[in-house]
Amino acid sequence: MNSIFVAGAGIVGLAVAIAIYSYVKRQPDGNDLMKGIAAQIYEGAMAFLFREYRILAIFVAAVFVLMLVAPGLGLSTGLCFLGGALCSVFAGFVGMNAATKANVRTAEAARSKGSVAAFFVSFNGGAVMGLSVASLGLLGLGVCFYIFGDPETARYVNGFAMGASSIALFSRVGGGIYTKAADVGSDLVGKVEAGIPEDDPRNPGVIADNVGDNVGDIAGMGADIFESYVGSIIATVAIASTAGAGAIASLAGYSDAARSALMGLPISLAVLGLGASLISIASMLALRKIDPQKALRYTSLVGTLLFLLFAFIFIYVLKLSLGIFWAVLFGTICGTAIGLITEYYTSSRPMRRIALASKTGPATNIINGFAVGLESSVIPMLVICVAIFFANYFAGLYGIGIAAVGMLATVGITMTVDAYGPVADNAGGISEMSGLGENVRKITDSLDALGNTTAAMGKGFAIGSAALTAIAMFAAFASSAQLDTINLTNPNVVIGLFIGGTLPFIVSALTMTSVGKAAGQMVEEIRRQFREIPGLLEGNPGVKPDPKTCVDISTKAALREMILPGLIAAVMPVAVGFILNKEALGGMLGGATVTGVLLALLMANAGGAWDNAKKAIEKGEIEGEKKGSDAHKAAVVGDTVGDPFKDTSGPALNILIKLMSIISLIIAPLLI
Amino acid sequence: MNSIFVAGAGIVGLAVAIAIYSYVKRQPDGNDLMKGIAAQIYEGAMAFLFREYRILAIFVAAVFVLMLVAPGLGLSTGLCFLGGALCSVFAGFVGMNAATKANVRTAEAARSKGSVAAFFVSFNGGAVMGLSVASLGLLGLGVCFYIFGDPETARYVNGFAMGASSIALFSRVGGGIYTKAADVGSDLVGKVEAGIPEDDPRNPGVIADNVGDNVGDIAGMGADIFESYVGSIIATVAIASTAGAGAIASLAGYSDAARSALMGLPISLAVLGLGASLISIASMLALRKIDPQKALRYTSLVGTLLFLLFAFIFIYVLKLSLGIFWAVLFGTICGTAIGLITEYYTSSRPMRRIALASKTGPATNIINGFAVGLESSVIPMLVICVAIFFANYFAGLYGIGIAAVGMLATVGITMTVDAYGPVADNAGGISEMSGLGENVRKITDSLDALGNTTAAMGKGFAIGSAALTAIAMFAAFASSAQLDTINLTNPNVVIGLFIGGTLPFIVSALTMTSVGKAAGQMVEEIRRQFREIPGLLEGNPGVKPDPKTCVDISTKAALREMILPGLIAAVMPVAVGFILNKEALGGMLGGATVTGVLLALLMANAGGAWDNAKKAIEKGEIEGEKKGSDAHKAAVVGDTVGDPFKDTSGPALNILIKLMSIISLIIAPLLI
Repeated sequence: MNSIFVAGAGIVGLAVAIAIYSYVKRQPDGNDLMKGIAAQIYEGAMAFLFREYRILAIFVAAVFVLMLVAPGLGLSTGLCFLGGALCSVFAGFVGMNAATKANVRTAEAARSKGSVAAFFVSFNGGAVMGLSVASLGLLGLGVCFYIFGDPETARYVNGFAMGASSIALFSRVGGGIYTKAADVGSDLVGKVEAGIPEDDPRNPGVIADNVGDNVGDIAGMGADIFESYVGSIIATVAIASTAGAGAIASLAGYSDAARSALMGLPISLAVLGLGASLISIASMLALRKIDPQKALRYTSLVGTLLFLLFAFIFIYVLKLSLGIFWAVLFGTICGTAIGLITEYYTSSRPMRRIALASKTGPATNIINGFAVGLESSVIPMLVICVAIFFANYFAGLYGIGIAAVGMLATVGITMTVDAYGPVADNAGGISEMSGLGENVRKITDSLDALGNTTAAMGKGFAIGSAALTAIAMFAAFASSAQLDTINLTNPNVVIGLFIGGTLPFIVSALTMTSVGKAAGQMVEEIRRQFREIPGLLEGNPGVKPDPKTCVDISTKAALREMILPGLIAAVMPVAVGFILNKEALGGMLGGATVTGVLLALLMANAGGAWDNAKKAIEKGEIEGEKKGSDAHKAAVVGDTVGDPFKDTSGPALNILIKLMSIISLIIAPLLI
Repeated sequence: MNSIFVAGAGIVGLAVAIAIYSYVKRQPDGNDLMKGIAAQIYEGAMAFLFREYRILAIFVAAVFVLMLVAPGLGLSTGLCFLGGALCSVFAGFVGMNAATKANVRTAEAARSKGSVAAFFVSFNGGAVMGLSVASLGLLGLGVCFYIFGDPETARYVNGFAMGASSIALFSRVGGGIYTKAADVGSDLVGKVEAGIPEDDPRNPGVIADNVGDNVGDIAGMGADIFESYVGSIIATVAIASTAGAGAIASLAGYSDAARSALMGLPISLAVLGLGASLISIASMLALRKIDPQKALRYTSLVGTLLFLLFAFIFIYVLKLSLGIFWAVLFGTICGTAIGLITEYYTSSRPMRRIALASKTGPATNIINGFAVGLESSVIPMLVICVAIFFANYFAGLYGIGIAAVGMLATVGITMTVDAYGPVADNAGGISEMSGLGENVRKITDSLDALGNTTAAMGKGFAIGSAALTAIAMFAAFASSAQLDTINLTNPNVVIGLFIGGTLPFIVSALTMTSVGKAAGQMVEEIRRQFREIPGLLEGNPGVKPDPKTCVDISTKAALREMILPGLIAAVMPVAVGFILNKEALGGMLGGATVTGVLLALLMANAGGAWDNAKKAIEKGEIEGEKKGSDAHKAAVVGDTVGDPFKDTSGPALNILIKLMSIISLIIAPLLI
């Protein structure tokens, strides 16, 4: 497929995203109180983004200069790197803009028009993010491949993935720290100490908490998935561009254009996936009237099945090996399966087990939650193994790359469903803060509960896709570094494996500690306001908290604390590659991927299960327990522990393993 | 060194152990109440051991039959296997016998003679265990190598390590579940619900708790270290027996006897280590009058330095490469360093951080404890990497094996110090239960507190030695399976790596869940007794609880729940080796070792730090907090979560990685 056509598909997708955005913006945005709260959230989110971008700009400029002087990289890699960073930033910016418009409009729709309308607005808010990620990825990659698409120059495009990774690192880690510092801090003082409800307007930390949902779950998640999306495509192109003649021939025959066909396939599949996503988003026009949970599930299913159909026809018409299609199929199944397994662990029997264990206190709640987390990492890991096995069986290393592409091609719809959650969550916060009453809150609560499930599944998908992408990049790295073997009987490789294995532990420890510290500051500030602002806690009319200081605490903490994990991720591959050797670097990537994926799954699923166990008690689903009982208090402890697990440390690991892989891929030519 | 001489050294060590045992037994064992309680503990421990042995006998017999029919193994491997199992069982039996005699005699010495005498009795109680482990290891290996010492038949001796591993698996996993089911169960009802002190005689679970200290920390720990001890020696012999001629020549010259010299060295070093241990244990006669903490530290130091001196002279006189000595030195340093790092994390600033975080409740206590655990796994892992690097630099793969031997050669004194802890802990329990009064309790408390530190360091040492042993066995496996490469660019190896990485997660989840279930049953039973036995909770004179049912609950749970983790460890290497291939099996061992060591360190250190943070608050070391305050309650939650972490799941992982390595080594010839 012509690169210009790819870029064109990206522009079409972007146009649809803008149309949806303007539709969302045209919806009524409620009364003055609601507008005011929404404005505070919007401003807080934008303020954070711009301050984050300023730090990012320094980092990006520094890496750009490094690339210019590094032998073998140069201006070409540098420009692609800038392109990747800009596309990711722009996708995050557009998506967050839409989300912070859609939240209040969802609340207003729930108030004036009811459940169906509210659901439709929040879904469309998410769709802007979903389509931005997919379209900007295609647009950027289309341009890069137009310029550097030949096998000899394709490696410059690796810079694009590195740019995306850099943004993802800061958005995910910074966003994760931001959101949980605010969340844990305001819960500890508001819910636990002062005994006021979540999202109560008296709590000065609530605005920061709602900003955090956007910063972490929209911008952070978007950058994470954007990175996997472009990373999987680029890794597969890199594998095709460096593969041996035999491998090429077995997949695409002996024609002169065989290699080009394989190099072009991943991005063509992504275009097909965007088409399928557009149709499935449109299908919501028909589906919106049924139960929202089913609607979301069907719309994703429509996207996946259409994509598989398109992919089959395309591969068949191009007369490529059908083995490639089977690899795509296994990648797609892998993504869906991990989502369903995540759903099981976070909302079925294992979750109930945690809720029941809360009856004997917080200690047994924690022990059981942790055990569920450990257990929940096993089957997804085996599913990934099955996908690797069959993808390799049907189409070799190229198959592993293309399986990752298959998993991510329908990112337009996957990310839409993901981003729906925080929009609904925000809508709930706004209706609580502006006192829209029981009935409205009931609608937003049910949308929010659904959003929790999609968020948990989205996290599982993000980890699974990060794992497959990292493995594809690993294969591309080995191929680009001309490594015939990364030999585990060589002690240097074992050392690399061990060092790599510890990195997710370091990054988790750092990010968890950061949340703890920042939440502590937040606690002090909220306590201070409750103490020093007369009439605030009593709820005297006209007395308002000062949310700006809280927003500031989260912002500063996030920007300060994301530096060290970022440096570790950026420096370690270079250090191990040059101080030990490229084989040890391969070992390091292997070690980091295995512990990174396992820890990420453990943290995401334990966190989700703790959260839902608390909610199950609140909803009266656990016999003999209710909100405020001792078991509920124990479950709140688990939920609080789970917050940094699932929203800060766990997601940071996705980025860690991908960023280290892409850096290794980029420095591969220098290590030969 | 002649194998007969090795066996003779073992007999000498055993004779000293018996002499110390009879010295301990001659000490006065207190009044009738004390004797009665000690008898209950002794009987509970022995009852558990014998029931465990019955299940073990079935397992051992089944594996023995499998070995007889498996091509390439046969009767020779089978007999060595039986020998290893018997020696391990006997070491555990002797050590636990001594410990259950020494506990009450320590309490009596504290009552009638004071601190110094009490310390000396408990140290000697531990010394019986330490010397049994070292001596029975040498005796068994001496006999096996006497029969199968030639390079062609040395591989049969691998069976000895497998026998030791099998016992270790059941002792460690079963013992760990036993001790924590009793501990968590009695604490939850006694301390938390009923508000009575730890070890209160009214609590029916207290006897089971004290039995558990012996079962888990003496027999379990002993079997674990025994396995590392013989495993490291056997792996090094295997490396020497299969190494290429070039490697042999570079280490031991071109003489005909070069290979034999290298094969004989590990066990000779172990004999030298036993000699050094005997002298250092004797040095306690002079050291006992100083501060116990310093006395323990100096006595270990004497052992280590003497061993290094002996080893240097021996290697120099035999005209082997001095590189081998450097490898030994790095192994020894590695063991000591890991112990010190463990001490730092579990009793210094990081521990204080957890105690301070308890001020904001259980959630922040857990988050910080978990973060400390994650962090604490990093430096020990890097220390292991440094040891691998230099051992390999100075003496190749053989160096890695001999470094593990160097770390473990002084096991006689290391294990003595380890086993001292539970003896002192038991002595404290007995003085509390028999009401020996404030002053006696103060002495036993201070001995117990010291025991907690040595226990934490011992756990670090156990993990570090397990890691080095597993790596040495991994090298031996690769060499025996004639694997020139375990290539991480081969997707099957990546699958192996991923599967291996998940295994520690599965085993941790299973064991943690087992503790939770068994502790739940214990809670029910203790509650029932408090409810149904009139006057028990009120402390009416003459009213006694029924500890036997509690002992029975722990025993049954331990025996039932150890089966599944055991099967996983035993079956997986065989399944992956034969279904995928030997290279994938190599990947699996790599993955299991990296996540196993990291998780084990995380769990052991987080658990130790939580425990000590609670103690720090109790001792008034945290400003504004004391026993019973909210912060203390939060710290108790952390301590309870840490119990299965540090005493069940963490230690089980040491065994998992070693057992899988030794099974792989044994089936290696079948995979060629």
